[in-house]
Parts: sequence; structure tokens; C-alpha cells
Amino acid sequence: MIIYRVNMGDLSVKKEEVPQEWQYLGGRAFTSAVVAKEVDPACNPMGAKNKLVFAPGLLSGTNAPNSGRMSVGAKSPLTGTIKESNVGGSASQKLGKMNIKGIIIEGQPAEDKYYNLHVDKDGIKIQEETELLGKGNYEVIDTLSKKHGDKIGVMTIGQAGEFRMAAANISVKDYHGNIRSAGRGGLGAVMASKKIKYITVDDTGAPGVPIANPEPFKAAALRLGKALKEHPVTGQGLPTYGTNVLVNILNEAGGLPTKNFRMGRFEGAHKISGEAMYEKIIDRKGKPTHNCHAGCVISCSQVYHDESGQFVTAGFEYETIWGFGAVCLIDDLDIIAQADRICDDIGIDTIETAVAVSTAMEGGVIEFGDGKGMLNLLNEIKKGTPLGRIIGNGAGFTGKAYGVTRVAVVKNQAIPAYDPRAVKGVGVTYATTTMGADHTAGYAVATNILKVGGFVSPLEKEGNIDLSRNLQIATAALDSTGLCLFVAFSILDNPDAFQAIVDLVNAQCNLNMTGDDLNEMGKNVLRTERGYNIAAGFTAKDDQLPEFFSEDFPPHNKTWDFTTEELQEVWNF
Amino acid sequence: MIIYRVNMGDLSVKKEEVPQEWQYLGGRAFTSAVVAKEVDPACNPMGAKNKLVFAPGLLSGTNAPNSGRMSVGAKSPLTGTIKESNVGGSASQKLGKMNIKGIIIEGQPAEDKYYNLHVDKDGIKIQEETELLGKGNYEVIDTLSKKHGDKIGVMTIGQAGEFRMAAANISVKDYHGNIRSAGRGGLGAVMASKKIKYITVDDTGAPGVPIANPEPFKAAALRLGKALKEHPVTGQGLPTYGTNVLVNILNEAGGLPTKNFRMGRFEGAHKISGEAMYEKIIDRKGKPTHNCHAGCVISCSQVYHDESGQFVTAGFEYETIWGFGAVCLIDDLDIIAQADRICDDIGIDTIETAVAVSTAMEGGVIEFGDGKGMLNLLNEIKKGTPLGRIIGNGAGFTGKAYGVTRVAVVKNQAIPAYDPRAVKGVGVTYATTTMGADHTAGYAVATNILKVGGFVSPLEKEGNIDLSRNLQIATAALDSTGLCLFVAFSILDNPDAFQAIVDLVNAQCNLNMTGDDLNEMGKNVLRTERGYNIAAGFTAKDDQLPEFFSEDFPPHNKTWDFTTEELQEVWNF
Repeated sequence: MIIYRVNMGDLSVKKEEVPQEWQYLGGRAFTSAVVAKEVDPACNPMGAKNKLVFAPGLLSGTNAPNSGRMSVGAKSPLTGTIKESNVGGSASQKLGKMNIKGIIIEGQPAEDKYYNLHVDKDGIKIQEETELLGKGNYEVIDTLSKKHGDKIGVMTIGQAGEFRMAAANISVKDYHGNIRSAGRGGLGAVMASKKIKYITVDDTGAPGVPIANPEPFKAAALRLGKALKEHPVTGQGLPTYGTNVLVNILNEAGGLPTKNFRMGRFEGAHKISGEAMYEKIIDRKGKPTHNCHAGCVISCSQVYHDESGQFVTAGFEYETIWGFGAVCLIDDLDIIAQADRICDDIGIDTIETAVAVSTAMEGGVIEFGDGKGMLNLLNEIKKGTPLGRIIGNGAGFTGKAYGVTRVAVVKNQAIPAYDPRAVKGVGVTYATTTMGADHTAGYAVATNILKVGGFVSPLEKEGNIDLSRNLQIATAALDSTGLCLFVAFSILDNPDAFQAIVDLVNAQCNLNMTGDDLNEMGKNVLRTERGYNIAAGFTAKDDQLPEFFSEDFPPHNKTWDFTTEELQEVWNF
Repeated sequence: MIIYRVNMGDLSVKKEEVPQEWQYLGGRAFTSAVVAKEVDPACNPMGAKNKLVFAPGLLSGTNAPNSGRMSVGAKSPLTGTIKESNVGGSASQKLGKMNIKGIIIEGQPAEDKYYNLHVDKDGIKIQEETELLGKGNYEVIDTLSKKHGDKIGVMTIGQAGEFRMAAANISVKDYHGNIRSAGRGGLGAVMASKKIKYITVDDTGAPGVPIANPEPFKAAALRLGKALKEHPVTGQGLPTYGTNVLVNILNEAGGLPTKNFRMGRFEGAHKISGEAMYEKIIDRKGKPTHNCHAGCVISCSQVYHDESGQFVTAGFEYETIWGFGAVCLIDDLDIIAQADRICDDIGIDTIETAVAVSTAMEGGVIEFGDGKGMLNLLNEIKKGTPLGRIIGNGAGFTGKAYGVTRVAVVKNQAIPAYDPRAVKGVGVTYATTTMGADHTAGYAVATNILKVGGFVSPLEKEGNIDLSRNLQIATAALDSTGLCLFVAFSILDNPDAFQAIVDLVNAQCNLNMTGDDLNEMGKNVLRTERGYNIAAGFTAKDDQLPEFFSEDFPPHNKTWDFTTEELQEVWNF
């Protein structure tokens, strides 16, 4: 395996061997190790000292099921913390097949010019880019697919990135030509600060990932695939309704944050639910089942059409639908789909942006429930108007612009689609994760609500610190393998699924790890990330939710009652 | 002495005795003690848990020269730190004469209504306010002067405060009817969050400040007055040219930050200098010499007229002229005066706003040197447009909105008119003060540039940590007495001036303090403030300047070269 180091200061590319200490790190373990070692924790995230790191997971590019996720890392301009943003699409597998451990992009061009990078088996070329500047992601991907062929991998920023907005994401083309997003933490702005509009990845002639012990690898891959197919969540719920199966579940549980986190049930929930969406998709000849990367056996994605049967968006996730739906009090799925499409096209995180819109509603910019007003706000982002720049810099920023105190952020990153008062385990994750509020960093919803891996009451404190800690550790390990987070459902209920993952890594790398060793890798990732944040000036005071979560939250009328001291127990490992 | 506690949650007022521990605290010592004891360091500064504290200095209301300054304290929405903002005008003396140690405003009204407070010898009345909502400070002061008579004291917020902008100030009427500003840290937004438009202060029938030993007090007052008159800075420079005498001095010293802190000399400096301003004032029949509060023997203020001889602004300070001038590359004093007038009227800090404008210029919103564009931006603030909300939330906010990395802030507060690379002593103050970048917290310019109190080279590191530390301690003590910071010039060169201050406090309070005791009071204030900031999550990492100050700074081509570790030595006392 090799590392490419791209210096945008002098427009040079170096090919490096992987140092021994990083030999068995992939994905998040690799990006966080590089950022922690090489990026000054005190630096300005938009300056020359920050680095942007792309790393396929350890298993990416192999035939292991659901192993095509990539990690993108940097110091985040949104949170000021270390950041790993995780994404599907085809680039991760292509990089893995070319035996690229990671691409480290550093420095900043002196001139105000944009560039593109082209990665293939011969190396990385840096070329000046003018044609696609100012263009949205759909046009970028279409143009590059015409130029390089449909199979080309693309990682790109839209207008939000070019405007260096703190909610800008990095969009990754999937093999259908649709858009997947490394959504959180503003890494699109970091890519813009390096003056890179897009990266194309062509794995023609790539050698493929070397597997030390192919037969045990194949056997373990089959076991993991079987476990995924057999689990009710990954075998039935997600394939049928996508992640949006959660609207009805969270609404029923009273944990669907509605009207800027005022209550846990939304009157219009049934109109935006996974079940309602499924019917619309079938009616309009969309695709109810679709995947974000080759080799995925879950296929939680879908293709959503409008009333006239035209494509609107793909990968229409629960968190997006909740965000532009319940939290903004909008119950029109077609408007929400338009919002998702605009966000994909301009390259901006839907969670951050939806909560920013709900914060703007709180500040009186538009009314709650005003779907057209919401689409107008998103178009302001696209145009880079002052109002667009306010919304595009996220929920915390929008709150400050309008003097709003009800702003749902932790470490300035928007709180996602599960209210921490009614799903306390994920609340612990929001408060303590190294990433700023992020449900994927320790998805306690699984055990609190879906009763996967046992049951810990979502409404009481008891057990939720331990639950979040264990999930944060396991997630950090999973994010390093390139496996999709959804394999966690199987792991939690089926010990052999976890063993299959350990066996996969062992077979690929010729190692003899135990499950405990893999867990230890997760712990090391968290320790590295937390050490970085502490060096950047973060303290226990930052590991807490905003003040307004001390309000009663209907229908259960629970409050957020973990003290800052209690939350620090997450770090006892 | 008494304390008034105004609860805006239930619209009640309580009169309290001063607890023993706060008996000898005034001004900043009092506001910081209250905030540190009563305001949760983790709270949202715009929420119900923050408190806004007004406190006259210990000597305010007496005949001691230059003793009419007031402290306003709270947790700052701009910096997130504890904040003391210091202001002239007539309210401080009136509160002192009514034997009011401080007014503590807490809570938040449940209803979305505004109120005004009226303070007189009988207590404090809370009344609903509708008439003056949305009005600028000039209209507020005119209207209230007509209603209550010219002598009425007024503390008010303009539109910037009502919009809850983080750069909003609290404006205080002086006895000429002009506007003085508790400028820094966004305390106008905190006043708005308490839903108070203005506070009127009527000291009719007030008993006056009790003086334990009147004769020694009178003698010490005369000695201090004499020292102020005899010192070249406070006896000649400031009375003739105002603080703007500094434009030529800093330009000559190569420390006048120009074009968003790119260089230390400005071609147009002579056109905006104190000397040029003096000529214009004389020509146009303004007033070159004017004071901000009764009993001031320095009179550094002035009244500036336009070409037709109409009043434009008063209290036209060096930092304002530098800000809307050199840092924005504007050399037209009349445009700068218009900018000052608009800021006074809408109630926004001129330093923060000028640096926000220069940051917007950096981001391409308008060109450097575009004076009309600058006035347009200020009018956007007045209207509360999205662009106005960006600028009105300060330099750091504007930088984020436009993806700019050259943003001159410490703890998110704009760096004032002395470049830290060419005036290193004040750079140490910017980095380390508990307040965010603030020249007044330890005005090392005195010794670095004006050679008052000896000389420490402004271009080398040596001696500047000690210089800043000593000045920060002395300033914290002075800010507690209600004396104007400019008495520091005399203190630094004339030991008897300092002794006179000690004698004043002793005579008033029947104490037997030494100079060391007064210094110790300053240290205690700093310890209290720093303890608060640490509890709020600030660390040594926050005590540093932005990355771009590592660039060479012409004409001396010095860089900012203090490490974060070295800067912490300020706290060795």
C-alpha cells in the first residue's frame, strides 16, 4: 500500500511508503492518525496548515459485503475539532483496488486559481480547473462521466464548498451516477481552501486489494453477508423502506424532534414516513431499493421521482426527511425531496442545513411550515447571498445571526433526528463524541428504540453512558474497516457477525487479532481524536448539550439531566 | 450603599444590602465579582441565566477628578468570556450619588415585550416600552431629555442591540447630550435579551457619596488633578488633539494596522490625523476640547462638524478613526465621522464594526478604500438585513461568513488600532487579557511607543510580558475606582499620582490601604475573571493571536513570535 501526499502550495505530488505505525490502519483510524500527527491543533481550519485526508477503509475494494465506505478527515471549520466524515460511492473501492492507503492534501496555492486532481494507477495529476467552477455537483458528475466514462469515480464540491461555507460537504459519485455525501463538519470548505474543485478516480488496470489468505477471507465474507441478510433491520426494514422507516418508529417513540426540538411527535409524520414514501416511489416508478456502493447487501437507498415520473433524488435519508420535515414542520414529501436535491447539488450537509433553516424559522426569517420559503433559503445558499451565507454556515451561525437561543448544536454541529431527551443514549453520544453532535458516532437508537443488542430505556439515565461508550468504541473500529455502520445491527445481535469481521481483517492482513484487539483499535482511534481536541483547547465543558434541553419534552416530558461530570464517564476506558 | 436586583422574569425589583465581601468593590471589581459568583459559566449569554450588571466606580459621584466612569458586566455573547465594558457619561456619577453600588439585571420576560427602567432616589420602576422601540440612540436621548429634562441620565440600546447583534453596545448619555459607549463585547445584545430598551437615571434629591474623611479626600483630589495637568500626555497631547493624536504617532512608529493588518504605515495617515482633525474642527466651529463626564480635567473628547458646520459626532476616538480609516484604507475624515455617527446612533462598537468591515473587504464584499460602500454596510446593520446581521455580529463572524482566514480577533473580539507585531506589549495584552483583544486592558502602548513609565522596545519580546502583566493588574484596579484609564499616564511617571489615588480610596472608605493593597485588588479582579473563563472552558490555547500574525509586518518586518507557553507567564503573579 502507498500514501500520496499532494502539496497544493507547490503543486507537487509525492508517493510515500506507509510507515509501520500506520500499516494496519484504514478509514477513520488512518485519517484521524494523520490529522492528529500532522495538523497543528491550534491552526485555522481554512488555512494552509490544515490537511484533508481521504482514506478507503481497510476492507474497501475487497469482496467483503458493505465494505465500500471511505473516510475523509481534517480539522473541521464547523466544529474546530478533528473530523471524520464517512461516505459511500465508488471512490473508496477504486482507491483500495489501487492499493492507496490514503491521499493527504496539504498546503494552499499562492495564486487564486482552482485545480482538479486525477488519480489513476500511474499516480496523481494536478491540473488547473476553470470549466466547472461555480457548477453544481450534478453537472460536474455528468460532465466528468462524459469525459472519462460512466465508471469514473468523482469526489467534488458544489457551490457551497466554493463559498467556503462551514456546512459544505464533499460529494462522491456512486456507480449509478448519483450523489453520496461526506456530509458533516464542513470538509467541502476545507477542499475549497485547498483550491480543489474535484478529484477523479480511475482504477483501470488496478491490481486489486491483496488478500493474504483468500479462502478464509471468502468464507468470512459469506458469513457476514448471511448475518446481514438474516437480521430484521438490515434484511427487511432497511431494504424495503430505507432509513426513512424511522419516521414512524421515532414518532411513535416520542423522540422525533419537531418544530425546532419543541416536541417528540409530529402531526404530519405519516405523510413523510418511509411507508408513505414507498408508495409514492412505487406509484411513480422510482426505485424503492438501491445501494450506495457495489457489494452492499442491504440497499437502504432508493430513487425518488416527482409526480411526473422525473428523477428528483437518490439516497433520500431519514435524517434529511426529518430535518426538512418534522423539525421545520413541513409535511410535504415532494418539497422535502426538492430540498434534498438542492443540497446534493450545491454540496451541503442536509442535517446541518435543515437545523439551520429551523433556527432561521425560530428567528422569524420565515414561518415554521413554509416549504416554499425553505426552498428559497436553499436557493439563497446556491447564490451565495448574505442570507445564503448565514444559513450555509450552519445552525449555530444562523442562531447567532438572528439572536436565537434555541439552537440545537453541540460543538457547533447540528443535533440530528433523535431527541436526546427521549433517546438518552444517543444524547450521550451527541454530547461526548469527538465529532460534535453526530448520531453515527454511537448509534444508541439501536438499543434504546429498536431493541437491537438488548434494551436500555431511552427515557432514563441508567445504562446509557455505558451503551454510548461501547457503541462509540465499536463504531470507531467499524469506521476504520470501511464497513457500513449498518453492520452494527448484526454485530449487536449476532456474535458471529463480529467474529466474521475480525476474521476478514485477519485474513486480509495476515494477522491474528481477537475481537478484543479490534475493540482496542476503536479505543485507540477515540483516544487519538480526543487527544487532538484537548490540544485544540476543548474541555469537558464542551461535552454538553445546549441549555434549552433542560425543558420538558412532550409527550414523555423528560428533560436532559446528565451533568457534565457524569458525561465524562464515557471516557472511562 | 445598596444593590438593586431587577428580575425581568417576574418584573420585580429588590433592594439589597451590600454583602461584606463586596463592601469595598466598585466598578469592574464589583461587576466581575457578581458575574463570577452568580452567572453559570456554561450558560448561553443571551439566555435567562446571564446577568447584566451596572456599577459606578468606587469614587464615582465624588469630586475626585476623572472619576465618572462606569463598568457594565456580563458574560459576553461576542467572546463567551466574562466581560467588563467601561464607559463615561453622566449615569455613573448619578448612581454613585444615590449610593447605588450596583444594579443587577437578571432573568428574561416570558412575553415578547420591551421595557424601560427608571432609577431615582425612591427605587427602580419597570415600565413597558413601545414608543422608542426601533429608534436610534440620538432620538432616544432627545425624546427622554424632553420628557425628563436635560439632566436625565440615560443608558440605552439602538437598533443593533434590538437585533441582538454580538457587536451591539450600550450607549450612555453624557451631560452635553452626546453619546458615550460601553462598546466592547456585545453587552447591548445582553440588554436586549433582558428586553430593556433604556434605563433613565434621575439623581434629584440624592444624598451624594459619603466621604469618611473629607479633608484628606479633598487634598488627594487636588494632588491627582495637578498630576494630570502636569503630565505631557494628559495635560497637553490629549486635550489638544484628543486620542487621535495617535494616528501620526503610530504611523511613524510603523504600528498603525493598515489594509486589514497588512502593514504598519498608511499613506493617507496625515489626512486623518489628530492634527488634521483639529484644523477641520477649528475651521468648522466645532469644539476641539470637550469632556465625557463632569470633573474630567483632561477633556480628550471633541465635537466634530461637517463642512456646513452641522454637528456630526462627538467623542471621535483614535480607534474609531483608525478603524474606519487605515484598516479599511479610507482617508476621508468626513466619511469616517459619518461612520462614527451611524455607529453611535445604532449602538454598535466602532472597533468591532470597523474590523468587520475590513474583513468584509478582504472577502470581496466591497473594495478596500470604498468609503461609500462602508457607509452602506453600516446602513445595512441599521436595517437588520442579512448582510447587516453578518457585519453587526463582528469581525470573526464576518470572516466565517465569507470564508476569510485573515481575521484579526482574539477570543472572537476584534484587535484594535495597534499592531501586535510592532507594539508587542499590547500584543501580549490582546492575547492574554480575560476580555478578548482589548487595548484598554493593559495599555502597553504607553511604554512601548509613548515612553511613559520608561521604555520597553515595541519590536522585541524582551520585557513585554512583564510590562503587560503589570499594566493589566493596575488597570483592573483603576477600572474599579471609576477613574478614567488615562490617569495611568500620570501614575506611570509620577509616584505621587498613584499615592493620591490610594489616599482618595482610603479617605472615602476610612481604610488604611497601601499601594500594594490596591495592586492586590487588581490581581484579585484578574484572578476572579480568569477563574470564570476557565470554568467556561477557556484554556491557554485561547490566549494566542491568529495565525496570520506570523507574517512579516512592514516597515519593521517583525512577526508575532510569542509562544502560547511564553504568554502564560502573564499569569505568574
